[in-house]
Amino acid sequence: MSPDAPPTLAPPTDPRLAAYLPLIYVAWADGELTDDEIRTICDRLATASDDDPPCRQALAGWLDPERPPTPSEHRRLLRRIRELAPDLPDAADLSLAELGLELAETLGHRPGERERAAIAQVQEALGLGDAEPARRILEPIRPMPEEEEAGARFDVGGLTRRLDGRHRELRQRLRRILSRPEFAYEYGLGREEQRARTLRLAKRLAEEGIGALSFPAEVGGGGDLTAFIAAFETMAFHDHSLLVKMGVQFGLFGGSILQLGTEGHHRRFLPRVATLELPGCFAMSETGHGSNVQELETVARYDAATGELVVTTPHARARKDYIGNAARDGRMATVFAQLEVEGESYGVHALLVPIRDERGEPLPGVTIEDCGEKMGLNGVDNGRLSFDGVRVPRENLLDRFASVDESGRYTSPITSASKRFFVMLGTLVGGRVSVALAGNSAAKSALAIAVRYAVRRRQFGPGGRPERALLDYPSHQRRLLPRLATTYALHFALEHLVQRYADSAGSEDRREVETLAAGLKAYSTWHATDTIQEGREACGGQGYLAENRFASLKADTDVFTTFEGDNTVLLQLVAKGLLSGYRKQFHDLTLLGLARYLAGRAAITVAELNPVVTRLRDEAHLRDRGFQTGALLWREEHLLSSLARRLKTRIDGGGDPFDALSECQTHALALAKAHVESTVLERFAAAVAGLEDAATREVLERLCDLYALSRIESDRGWFQEHGYLEGGKAKAIRDQVDRLCAEVRPQAVPLVNAFGIPPALLAAPIAL
Amino acid sequence: MSPDAPPTLAPPTDPRLAAYLPLIYVAWADGELTDDEIRTICDRLATASDDDPPCRQALAGWLDPERPPTPSEHRRLLRRIRELAPDLPDAADLSLAELGLELAETLGHRPGERERAAIAQVQEALGLGDAEPARRILEPIRPMPEEEEAGARFDVGGLTRRLDGRHRELRQRLRRILSRPEFAYEYGLGREEQRARTLRLAKRLAEEGIGALSFPAEVGGGGDLTAFIAAFETMAFHDHSLLVKMGVQFGLFGGSILQLGTEGHHRRFLPRVATLELPGCFAMSETGHGSNVQELETVARYDAATGELVVTTPHARARKDYIGNAARDGRMATVFAQLEVEGESYGVHALLVPIRDERGEPLPGVTIEDCGEKMGLNGVDNGRLSFDGVRVPRENLLDRFASVDESGRYTSPITSASKRFFVMLGTLVGGRVSVALAGNSAAKSALAIAVRYAVRRRQFGPGGRPERALLDYPSHQRRLLPRLATTYALHFALEHLVQRYADSAGSEDRREVETLAAGLKAYSTWHATDTIQEGREACGGQGYLAENRFASLKADTDVFTTFEGDNTVLLQLVAKGLLSGYRKQFHDLTLLGLARYLAGRAAITVAELNPVVTRLRDEAHLRDRGFQTGALLWREEHLLSSLARRLKTRIDGGGDPFDALSECQTHALALAKAHVESTVLERFAAAVAGLEDAATREVLERLCDLYALSRIESDRGWFQEHGYLEGGKAKAIRDQVDRLCAEVRPQAVPLVNAFGIPPALLAAPIAL
Repeated sequence: MSPDAPPTLAPPTDPRLAAYLPLIYVAWADGELTDDEIRTICDRLATASDDDPPCRQALAGWLDPERPPTPSEHRRLLRRIRELAPDLPDAADLSLAELGLELAETLGHRPGERERAAIAQVQEALGLGDAEPARRILEPIRPMPEEEEAGARFDVGGLTRRLDGRHRELRQRLRRILSRPEFAYEYGLGREEQRARTLRLAKRLAEEGIGALSFPAEVGGGGDLTAFIAAFETMAFHDHSLLVKMGVQFGLFGGSILQLGTEGHHRRFLPRVATLELPGCFAMSETGHGSNVQELETVARYDAATGELVVTTPHARARKDYIGNAARDGRMATVFAQLEVEGESYGVHALLVPIRDERGEPLPGVTIEDCGEKMGLNGVDNGRLSFDGVRVPRENLLDRFASVDESGRYTSPITSASKRFFVMLGTLVGGRVSVALAGNSAAKSALAIAVRYAVRRRQFGPGGRPERALLDYPSHQRRLLPRLATTYALHFALEHLVQRYADSAGSEDRREVETLAAGLKAYSTWHATDTIQEGREACGGQGYLAENRFASLKADTDVFTTFEGDNTVLLQLVAKGLLSGYRKQFHDLTLLGLARYLAGRAAITVAELNPVVTRLRDEAHLRDRGFQTGALLWREEHLLSSLARRLKTRIDGGGDPFDALSECQTHALALAKAHVESTVLERFAAAVAGLEDAATREVLERLCDLYALSRIESDRGWFQEHGYLEGGKAKAIRDQVDRLCAEVRPQAVPLVNAFGIPPALLAAPIAL
Repeated sequence: MSPDAPPTLAPPTDPRLAAYLPLIYVAWADGELTDDEIRTICDRLATASDDDPPCRQALAGWLDPERPPTPSEHRRLLRRIRELAPDLPDAADLSLAELGLELAETLGHRPGERERAAIAQVQEALGLGDAEPARRILEPIRPMPEEEEAGARFDVGGLTRRLDGRHRELRQRLRRILSRPEFAYEYGLGREEQRARTLRLAKRLAEEGIGALSFPAEVGGGGDLTAFIAAFETMAFHDHSLLVKMGVQFGLFGGSILQLGTEGHHRRFLPRVATLELPGCFAMSETGHGSNVQELETVARYDAATGELVVTTPHARARKDYIGNAARDGRMATVFAQLEVEGESYGVHALLVPIRDERGEPLPGVTIEDCGEKMGLNGVDNGRLSFDGVRVPRENLLDRFASVDESGRYTSPITSASKRFFVMLGTLVGGRVSVALAGNSAAKSALAIAVRYAVRRRQFGPGGRPERALLDYPSHQRRLLPRLATTYALHFALEHLVQRYADSAGSEDRREVETLAAGLKAYSTWHATDTIQEGREACGGQGYLAENRFASLKADTDVFTTFEGDNTVLLQLVAKGLLSGYRKQFHDLTLLGLARYLAGRAAITVAELNPVVTRLRDEAHLRDRGFQTGALLWREEHLLSSLARRLKTRIDGGGDPFDALSECQTHALALAKAHVESTVLERFAAAVAGLEDAATREVLERLCDLYALSRIESDRGWFQEHGYLEGGKAKAIRDQVDRLCAEVRPQAVPLVNAFGIPPALLAAPIAL
């Protein structure tokens, strides 16, 4: 035999050597042993066999660090072990040393005490004390697991009915409509194709009466504001371009006529708005002023000579920007402009301005630009509108809160221009409520897709056993289940908001509803952005394919955090609402009124902490709703009092209120968020406590715990800073969140099924 | 006069009344006063004027809660004040009461002590102690501010040169190439148009020699692996479809031939790969196995009779999925398959398989599907490949680490199949390094756009003064500036990674480089996703327009967190690398080797805390680099020791290592993240300390403080739980982060300019 071709190692056939086979195989298979370690193992084995020279020599051949087995020799060793093992009962449960001893006995050799000890030592040197390695060697092929998700422990249909609430029938009808083939998703359409499709589908929904749900019965409508909102929430399980097109036409354009106009406007316009015969725009934002609406610069000057209002865009920054329905379809626009009568400016008012003729051509004096390609919502034709002395009759002023008579006399029941402005805007809060709901519907879709994927997709696993479902990994539970809890919590908080919105029309309570809507809109849409992102990542590359829905969910809903009020601006409104105790209009960003309320507020002190409670950490305590709500309320109260004190100090010291609030801005945002979270928990807890079915209540109680504790956990830095939690308790809360995730996990699929999203509206079945 | 038309209130002309005008105006303008409050004010004013009946009567008319002024009367009052005020010097700086007194004096009336006191009382009742209200009344029109950004305090070009490093010339050349009109962005293209454009531009870059940068000089290449990586980093400022197409062709397909093949493969294929004459794929992932590559199921069986390898897809789940260049352009693929020789399976190997003929038709036995529309990167033609007994010559096996001779003898210098697998994969780490860099380039683009927008866009402001730039709001600074700091920190950490990658070829250090690459890839791509999202929101609706770049930045980079290794899986690799102290291959997910290292690790105890240090909170201490790096290292050490202890307890108790690590998964992920952050800080601090220019160093020292303290702040819950920070110190760190944001803010524009992103590659100039 030439030195170039060393003798091939054959697996030992001597029964005395069989006991060593599994350990030898693993020593080389591991790939992690250094030469030194191999030498150590070799030495120990040699000791065990030193009174048996042939055995020793065979082992030395297999364990020579200078000449490791070739891959083929190594594979043959494994084949030999497998040939011998089938006769052994429960071989997969043995350790490597045990397996070796069994193999030897199968061949008729019973190793002595000393041999056994040496083998055990080697096993220990390899760090292999348990049964897993034998399983890995003997069962390299993993059977594909059965689909074996645990069943629902509660009445899923019953929970869907509860979530649907009083508009269940409408929602069910919409689910059927949206599941029709004509509403099926299409991917990769060009912008103009998407716009055409969106208009076509919006008209189909209008034919089904969806557009008129909120309009007065006198003009053929349903007369129920909350019905359109429920429809909007349900449509948000589907294509968001269609959703936003519907929202612009019926919610914003129709809603502005309904809320800011009077009966004459309703009769003249709403019937044609409801059928989409008169497609319209809501032209509020300008290039220079998005959030700061009070300062917008379009002018509507009253010309008493002709009884007309003359609409003008004074400069490019004052053009109406980002206006839905403007680039392609709109015939008329509700234009917000500074109203000037006889040389006096009365602030922002809304009036109806025709923008296109019957053939779709822009009317004289109206310039229309296309905003072009957007991140998403490309089925909505956003555009820019400029007006060059466009004249409309005096009657086109939407005059519920202010009017101009023929002689040019301006009248309004509200003296203050600022207050008038906010009363007008307050009537439009329905849009904000609707976006909050749509955000949560989008989060529901993302979770439904991601949770189902996570129980079907398996990756990695212990040797010899099926790969593990993603949702059985704790980090995957952490990604999805606290967000599932938040989505449920928000559902009930938003349901409550809609009810209060419906109850509060015209009442003083309206201001509190506006604050709540602002806070929940911000919280819900950020939650949606975050949940969709996490869901996408949790589905890996599959989540990146358009057919699996995350692409459109992400791109389309991304602007939810911006439109109907930028979230950061909205949270500042919430903080100001809290600072003024809702007594007043909270909107006015010049803060003239703020200072008056600070003195009283700053004096309020937060409840003293009970040192025992800051330490208690048993499960019963942590799952006590009183502890949870108490913690979130305490945080809110503390942030409110300390903010009031900080502002008062600054203002007392001669600071400008605007600057004072700017300086405390992050504090104010933290307060607003804390307020929203304690409100959401309160509503979730109340709704869960009111559930009739005990099994459903039990499952949702755990979700409610998960919501509350994951919120406290995520802000545990603050709670510790302020002495509310000791370190050990903070850790205990983290552990509880882990435990609750594990408890909720078996019911995750039933819980997302209960959202009642029609299968046709969810992702394509993902190939696994 | 009829009772229906009450007398119109005219602004008082009596000089004695002038003092009250500003207060009366504001009382009604505020819109926040209740009737009771109006009555109180009225009473006080009445007291002041009770010895002057005509005066008292006039005031009563203006302050009758039963009959508030009409809006026109209210406006006339304002006009009257403005008529009188221009004669006053510095009127805008006065309080309302002061303004009133000045107005009275202008008209020749000097109010007495008692009158002055009453006016002051009313002002106090209104809560208006400062000067802002007078300004608001007198200067309602806000001048458009000048562009007045502070200049750079350091040499911006010098910093760009430093960031560019040794491949500056190549980067500059690429900047010029990518700024050419042919590379200009196009929005709203259909998928096939995008694919055609991407291929066309990739060919242009290949003509410029970019594709061959890393290939050996013998085949006409540049022979420098880091040059292609630098090009990739620079190209990531531009279209990411083009970037990924380049990465697939030259980095993955070309890289697999370079790293896994031998000289014959290099000579035969690389020249045509470099020119894109031979477009190719990297066919690793399968539908059923993305992350768990070791278990993939495509088979390559050696047929000794013909000397061919026979490639087969055994079932649908084993098809190659998501393969770039497959759907449209690829002619050949590097296919990863389980290699079977003479009935033995030797694990995953790579071989070259032609998939299309010269006319672009799939070859016999090859089935190609199109993955269709994706969230982004639609210029890359991802597809699915299935093989039905496709035969290729034996020589197509990429045989650097294993080969099959004619007779069917398999040879490899590495015995262990597992080790062989990870050595092969380790050579491909360049792809992971490149994606980490691309993620940070994308974050740079997002910050450059958002920061520039934030200094130009103004919204809201104190009365009478220009609206305020967004970046002057603390919450906006919080959104952008800590992320700017992280981006700089990552830049230097990644520069270091590339250097170590270049230095480590073939060395033992390679394992540590692989761990570092895994950790930085996960951290950088998550940072990019987060920063792009924040940047989009910080630009409001403008951020949603395609032309402003966030749409493509978001959609295209979203999959960076998934491809080249799912981030969560990568962080687990990092944790295992740390647990084994890098001594060994850390990849093997069956964890056979893990247990051996735990005993030693678990015994390590973390340094004791110094109780003084946990409390110290002065600025000098918090900005001390030693405190900052100490905190991050302590966290890492603590998480490592406690994880080792937890795992050891489980394994000693008979637990399966896989299950043990699963149970501790969130702990392992926290450890990995902590390790990455302390490494990043260490590299950032070292790079900053090494800067020659003192002014640049000074600015970057602040950024380094901001990075370090914002990282500690974001995990201050953990630091408090473990006694490292007391509550007061945690608060002081929060304050420092605020302060550092304010300090960095004036240099924010120069700092993003220093990234050196060509103007043509950034957003369209945003209209404000």
